[in-house]
Amino acid sequence: MRILLVNGPNLNTLGAREPEIYGTTTLAQIEAAVRARAAEFQADVRALQSNSEGAIVDWLQQEQADGDGLVINAGALAHYGIALRDAVAACGLPAVEVHISNVWRREEFRHASLLSPVVSGAIVGLGAHGYVLAVEALARIIQGAE
Amino acid sequence: MRILLVNGPNLNTLGAREPEIYGTTTLAQIEAAVRARAAEFQADVRALQSNSEGAIVDWLQQEQADGDGLVINAGALAHYGIALRDAVAACGLPAVEVHISNVWRREEFRHASLLSPVVSGAIVGLGAHGYVLAVEALARIIQGAE
Amino acid sequence: MRILLVNGPNLNTLGAREPEIYGTTTLAQIEAAVRARAAEFQADVRALQSNSEGAIVDWLQQEQADGDGLVINAGALAHYGIALRDAVAACGLPAVEVHISNVWRREEFRHASLLSPVVSGAIVGLGAHGYVLAVEALARIIQGAE
Amino acid sequence: MRILLVNGPNLNTLGAREPEIYGTTTLAQIEAAVRARAAEFQADVRALQSNSEGAIVDWLQQEQADGDGLVINAGALAHYGIALRDAVAACGLPAVEVHISNVWRREEFRHASLLSPVVSGAIVGLGAHGYVLAVEALARIIQGAE
Amino acid sequence: MRILLVNGPNLNTLGAREPEIYGTTTLAQIEAAVRARAAEFQADVRALQSNSEGAIVDWLQQEQADGDGLVINAGALAHYGIALRDAVAACGLPAVEVHISNVWRREEFRHASLLSPVVSGAIVGLGAHGYVLAVEALARIIQGAE
Amino acid sequence: MRILLVNGPNLNTLGAREPEIYGTTTLAQIEAAVRARAAEFQADVRALQSNSEGAIVDWLQQEQADGDGLVINAGALAHYGIALRDAVAACGLPAVEVHISNVWRREEFRHASLLSPVVSGAIVGLGAHGYVLAVEALARIIQGAE
Amino acid sequence: MRILLVNGPNLNTLGAREPEIYGTTTLAQIEAAVRARAAEFQADVRALQSNSEGAIVDWLQQEQADGDGLVINAGALAHYGIALRDAVAACGLPAVEVHISNVWRREEFRHASLLSPVVSGAIVGLGAHGYVLAVEALARIIQGAE
Amino acid sequence: MRILLVNGPNLNTLGAREPEIYGTTTLAQIEAAVRARAAEFQADVRALQSNSEGAIVDWLQQEQADGDGLVINAGALAHYGIALRDAVAACGLPAVEVHISNVWRREEFRHASLLSPVVSGAIVGLGAHGYVLAVEALARIIQGAE
Amino acid sequence: MRILLVNGPNLNTLGAREPEIYGTTTLAQIEAAVRARAAEFQADVRALQSNSEGAIVDWLQQEQADGDGLVINAGALAHYGIALRDAVAACGLPAVEVHISNVWRREEFRHASLLSPVVSGAIVGLGAHGYVLAVEALARIIQGAE
Amino acid sequence: MRILLVNGPNLNTLGAREPEIYGTTTLAQIEAAVRARAAEFQADVRALQSNSEGAIVDWLQQEQADGDGLVINAGALAHYGIALRDAVAACGLPAVEVHISNVWRREEFRHASLLSPVVSGAIVGLGAHGYVLAVEALARIIQGAE
Amino acid sequence: MRILLVNGPNLNTLGAREPEIYGTTTLAQIEAAVRARAAEFQADVRALQSNSEGAIVDWLQQEQADGDGLVINAGALAHYGIALRDAVAACGLPAVEVHISNVWRREEFRHASLLSPVVSGAIVGLGAHGYVLAVEALARIIQGAE
Amino acid sequence: MRILLVNGPNLNTLGAREPEIYGTTTLAQIEAAVRARAAEFQADVRALQSNSEGAIVDWLQQEQADGDGLVINAGALAHYGIALRDAVAACGLPAVEVHISNVWRREEFRHASLLSPVVSGAIVGLGAHGYVLAVEALARIIQGAE
Repeated sequence: MRILLVNGPNLNTLGAREPEIYGTTTLAQIEAAVRARAAEFQADVRALQSNSEGAIVDWLQQEQADGDGLVINAGALAHYGIALRDAVAACGLPAVEVHISNVWRREEFRHASLLSPVVSGAIVGLGAHGYVLAVEALARIIQGAE
Repeated sequence: MRILLVNGPNLNTLGAREPEIYGTTTLAQIEAAVRARAAEFQADVRALQSNSEGAIVDWLQQEQADGDGLVINAGALAHYGIALRDAVAACGLPAVEVHISNVWRREEFRHASLLSPVVSGAIVGLGAHGYVLAVEALARIIQGAE
Repeated sequence: MRILLVNGPNLNTLGAREPEIYGTTTLAQIEAAVRARAAEFQADVRALQSNSEGAIVDWLQQEQADGDGLVINAGALAHYGIALRDAVAACGLPAVEVHISNVWRREEFRHASLLSPVVSGAIVGLGAHGYVLAVEALARIIQGAE
Repeated sequence: MRILLVNGPNLNTLGAREPEIYGTTTLAQIEAAVRARAAEFQADVRALQSNSEGAIVDWLQQEQADGDGLVINAGALAHYGIALRDAVAACGLPAVEVHISNVWRREEFRHASLLSPVVSGAIVGLGAHGYVLAVEALARIIQGAE
Repeated sequence: MRILLVNGPNLNTLGAREPEIYGTTTLAQIEAAVRARAAEFQADVRALQSNSEGAIVDWLQQEQADGDGLVINAGALAHYGIALRDAVAACGLPAVEVHISNVWRREEFRHASLLSPVVSGAIVGLGAHGYVLAVEALARIIQGAE
Repeated sequence: MRILLVNGPNLNTLGAREPEIYGTTTLAQIEAAVRARAAEFQADVRALQSNSEGAIVDWLQQEQADGDGLVINAGALAHYGIALRDAVAACGLPAVEVHISNVWRREEFRHASLLSPVVSGAIVGLGAHGYVLAVEALARIIQGAE
Repeated sequence: MRILLVNGPNLNTLGAREPEIYGTTTLAQIEAAVRARAAEFQADVRALQSNSEGAIVDWLQQEQADGDGLVINAGALAHYGIALRDAVAACGLPAVEVHISNVWRREEFRHASLLSPVVSGAIVGLGAHGYVLAVEALARIIQGAE
Repeated sequence: MRILLVNGPNLNTLGAREPEIYGTTTLAQIEAAVRARAAEFQADVRALQSNSEGAIVDWLQQEQADGDGLVINAGALAHYGIALRDAVAACGLPAVEVHISNVWRREEFRHASLLSPVVSGAIVGLGAHGYVLAVEALARIIQGAE
Repeated sequence: MRILLVNGPNLNTLGAREPEIYGTTTLAQIEAAVRARAAEFQADVRALQSNSEGAIVDWLQQEQADGDGLVINAGALAHYGIALRDAVAACGLPAVEVHISNVWRREEFRHASLLSPVVSGAIVGLGAHGYVLAVEALARIIQGAE
Repeated sequence: MRILLVNGPNLNTLGAREPEIYGTTTLAQIEAAVRARAAEFQADVRALQSNSEGAIVDWLQQEQADGDGLVINAGALAHYGIALRDAVAACGLPAVEVHISNVWRREEFRHASLLSPVVSGAIVGLGAHGYVLAVEALARIIQGAE
Repeated sequence: MRILLVNGPNLNTLGAREPEIYGTTTLAQIEAAVRARAAEFQADVRALQSNSEGAIVDWLQQEQADGDGLVINAGALAHYGIALRDAVAACGLPAVEVHISNVWRREEFRHASLLSPVVSGAIVGLGAHGYVLAVEALARIIQGAE
Repeated sequence: MRILLVNGPNLNTLGAREPEIYGTTTLAQIEAAVRARAAEFQADVRALQSNSEGAIVDWLQQEQADGDGLVINAGALAHYGIALRDAVAACGLPAVEVHISNVWRREEFRHASLLSPVVSGAIVGLGAHGYVLAVEALARIIQGAE
């Protein structure tokens, strides 16, 4: 089983950027935790972080054939990146959306995600550990558990 | 550690009600799974299901002194039960909101939850297993993990 | 054939409450007229009036197995009681919605009913006799007439 | 007692047009059923179907002096035909609006009817039989029953 | 100088229809008063009343070559008759819009007129005499007065 | 008979200000034309122009006892001067609103006037001569003509 | 003279719940102060607090015959409890609405109260003492003072 | 193969009406060009222009049995003619909508067409030649080309 | 203790202006009643009524240094006078807003007050006596009572 | 004559991606068909597909000097790519917009295109052949045909 | 060269009023800094501060003949003072709008300025020094620099 | 002191692109003028222009450690580039936003900038010289001047 992990714009600065909102965990630490939980399900992980919507779309088109599921935190692109939404919908993989912070306590334009209707589900506001929970949820979906 | 588990209107019919939306897992099975994951964190569980907003508010006021955190699927009340929102905010406990189905694929009035801004975070659309993930997230918040 | 008859908040005061809007017929008179028309279709009637949304949801969950159809005037709950809507949709019975007064001549928040999309149809503004017409419509639906 | 029966655009194709929405009953069958129920109240029926709003307004102005009440399914005109609304309001007759399908399950622009605030009431979503119920309701209003 | 006078749906019933809104003056009396004021400007009058938007558009296309200006009370069509608006704009004649009643005291859908941006100006709420004032305004516009 | 004539902010610059919108007639010329038409009805005219809403309200409170009707072009205040609207409504005099330009061809915030629902009617877009027509309309209303 | 005093959901926790918003006065202290001021007007007080809308509606229907006026803080129900609004309107008693906190400084969904149009008036944001002022206002209304 | 060609209100004046918007090609020239391109696909053409929505609906109901596809420029009716929309949807023929001018550069009420969701596709803003392209598109759809 | 009392546009005509809305009490009577209740708290009163927003702002800037609190009925300015709102917020005094009539039963533009978020609280719809209650509320706030 | 052909995000997967929406024609097949029709007008074609808005803007800035017209299917960028809109508007070339699917049957955020007001016209919902029709339309515009 | 400097309501209290928003610079200091930068461009300055919209309009009408440009901070009037907007537009002078604070971080009603579309440009959120920058911008516009 | 200067999509074509909107100054000339004014404050300048949001975010993340402030004209990205907004907010530098044209005279989607709430202030509509003024404003903010 292979899990694709996508992080969108500005998430490479996690741990340094506005820690009162995003916590002090770095992206490297998140990726490590994701790989660890994935391993419990005999899954490996392919990961991308990019600040460019086009690059994420390119990568998804390339990787989707070899992936079994997608964990994605699109960052700000969740709120306006329709091309990314289309790529996620088109890739045909089960997907779980993650947001580190509770977007409903923030600016109104962050309350809705374009990705939400095209993924299986979302984990929001539960910090960096939300990625780990997403892996468990995704692995179970791939395995066909209810 | 004690976790309060609240299920709102119509969730007592889980497993029988519209299984194409809500799956075939019953509420009793969910509560059992919740208790199992809670036990991994040395937590016990107090659970309520009610079709009445007033009864849920009453119960929260009574139980909050002995609880350490809240897992809540308010069902339809998430979208109009301001009194319940106020009770959740007032109880002072960390809370995780759960929705079994992906609310963003359903009627527009289900897209926003009044509870979302007053809980720590939410797990949406990941089926009955979302409750189990919520327990893990909540336990870690209570333990002070990031 | 069994018809379930539900009346929501404040409808127990029919005949006394604002008769210029709701007329002078009492709820007891309505129930009698409903039973009479139902009898023409060899149907009996189980009736509930309650001011509490939770109590109506409880009752619907209990009665649905023995009912063949539902006539419902949800009163004010028609406009915000999503839990009741969900219970009506989940009960799986054909249903006809009744409003005694012409809601479109009243406050704008009464113009839309949350129940309308989950019932077969509605009879609005035709006074207490609307319940009787609803019984005839419902009986025909249960019988499979077009 | 004379009942005026008006059917608006496209209702002449009933029975053939999109039967999954409108059923298989033809307009001729509806008119026959209307006359039958009207006869129970010693009422005759004058009927018009037209695809032209202007023609319906002309007809209402001509017939209103000899009519005692109006049953009207304005079809699509219900949603934008303000001239028709004005003619209905101006004719001074009690009126009952009919829609065959449940408009609240269809496109949003069909959810509101301009006629609704100027008629006594409406019967919606109950199929071709809704016309028959409308006759009973209208006859009782003309007779002064509550 | 020739003035075209157009009256839209339901205005043929003026004097009889809802006199508390529209007064007791008949359309014939209005046309006579219009001709009288027009005569002071050496203008004759061609008049049409129709309940059909299509018929008014046909007539405008036919008459515009011989007319010098237009006085128009489109009735309800002012609020939704875009085809009529296009015909008025396309005819190339100066035009004055008239409404007998004060539309801003009535239903909100009557507050805006589609014709208003394509006519020179409007006279609203000043009763049947508004037509006479419109003739004076129009004649001065045709004569090139400021 | 006494007619009160009120002109609001910036109307003292008529003739000089943006003549492509407002024409070349000065306010003095307008007042003279108003007095002339008023004289045909044996009416005299009291006139005020002010750039200050408060001053107009003061003046209306003082003059209303001796006036029989009001012609008012509130200028920009028509769109936000609720205090002026209240003063016009409270003065108890019949009133006609005038706008020189066709406000519906201009910015959207000029399309609605707060005064419109509290005056008898309005004359819009017919240039400086609109004041003269307003006098005729007002005089007839004062005289009790329909 | 009898004054009915209704407090809605969560108001039983006053003094303990979020004191930075609601102050430190308890509900018992408020009821005592209400009784004291009521006594100045020879009025006694019947009081209810409930977290359930249905229970409040039940109570109002029972008590209204023996009451002369109503002081009501509906809490969160003010913003969505249409059934409660209907019960207040139907009870036929003069009523004064109270909110302890300044609702207009809080979430937008608290800015409007469904009760406001059906009560005599409201006292908002003036703390627990607002109840006392409401008693004085209500007593004067019952006595017929302007 | 037979193609039905419908032109709505005011399109009979093409070539003369506002040529800066609609160009100088007449409707007769358009029909000739349509027939020429249709002939390349062995199709003949039946054409209607009418200023009356009712007449277009009548014609569509009559012609649909003998037609294989529809090219329609509904003119202004595209924006409010729901009866026409229903007739197009009910006729069961593949259809291509044409607008001569670029409607998105014009008034906002022209930006959306009620027909668009019930036709196969649309050709907008490409002048009179858009009809010819529509014929090619429609012929290919009828022939089953992708 | 000094209380500043501000009354906005048109409130000088209280008692005469639309008494069915505002009652028959005059502004002089209100000021006398305010002084009487203020005296119970050893407070004197400085009062202003003006129809001009600028004059009220000027006065507030001058008087604020010597005042301890503000009772303000801004009249119509409550709904659009942002400069007045800013002056009230900037003066740094505790303030209570008063409206004589129940604004929520009137035009929608009167439902929200720009002042409400910058005052301590409001007393609405309780007639002229609302000013007296406001004095009591304000005096207690100044004294530091909860 | 040179035609620039731009395809935006995800259009490189045409033929494989969601064929029930986009058909089975590949982008290579579309480009071949475009070149063929262009050749009938003695035009060659320069083509770009990119998933990155920035790359498309770069390419347009480079190619515009040598191009005579633009056929563009911006994909999802049509709905939010304002930078692309600005680049299309700034390039000064006539342009035709293409959408393969009927966007008005899909999510509401796809109903409006930011490009539409800055191109000559659009061909929507007519499948892959829409590109070919766009070439014909564009070539005629470049040639100066009406 | 003469620069007119207008400051609207409450700006006379700069330095004292809410310094966390507006800073500690007084209006006198701002005017001195404005005159200094103006002197670099051989310009003198005429300045007005008023809390009354009417007074500002009066002053602009008087001074415009002798001024070459306008620097204006309308304060709260920027958001509702349409009469002031009209006066600025009518004066025919180039103008630069200044706001001391970043209005987009404040209440939503401050986000849009009615003046913005009728001035050359705006300087917002850059504190008291924004006036000085405005003088430089304005002087260059008057001198015809790009 | 180092100032970062960012120009977004299409600004590399300044001077050539639509000069009636953006003037004839080139980007090279702007950068030169920016460096000159910066030099007066002993500041050097690092500049980027890119048509790609991702590239700008990358660059900001790299340069922010060595920069003291930011002047940014995001071009079209100001209106939808939330990722860029987040990067600007996260970089922790004081920033001044520049728009060359008066965006409030253009399409409504350009009226609001996502950057505005996260920068210190903005200079809008003052042409290419706005960049120079922004440097002065930024330098003073960096120096701690009010």
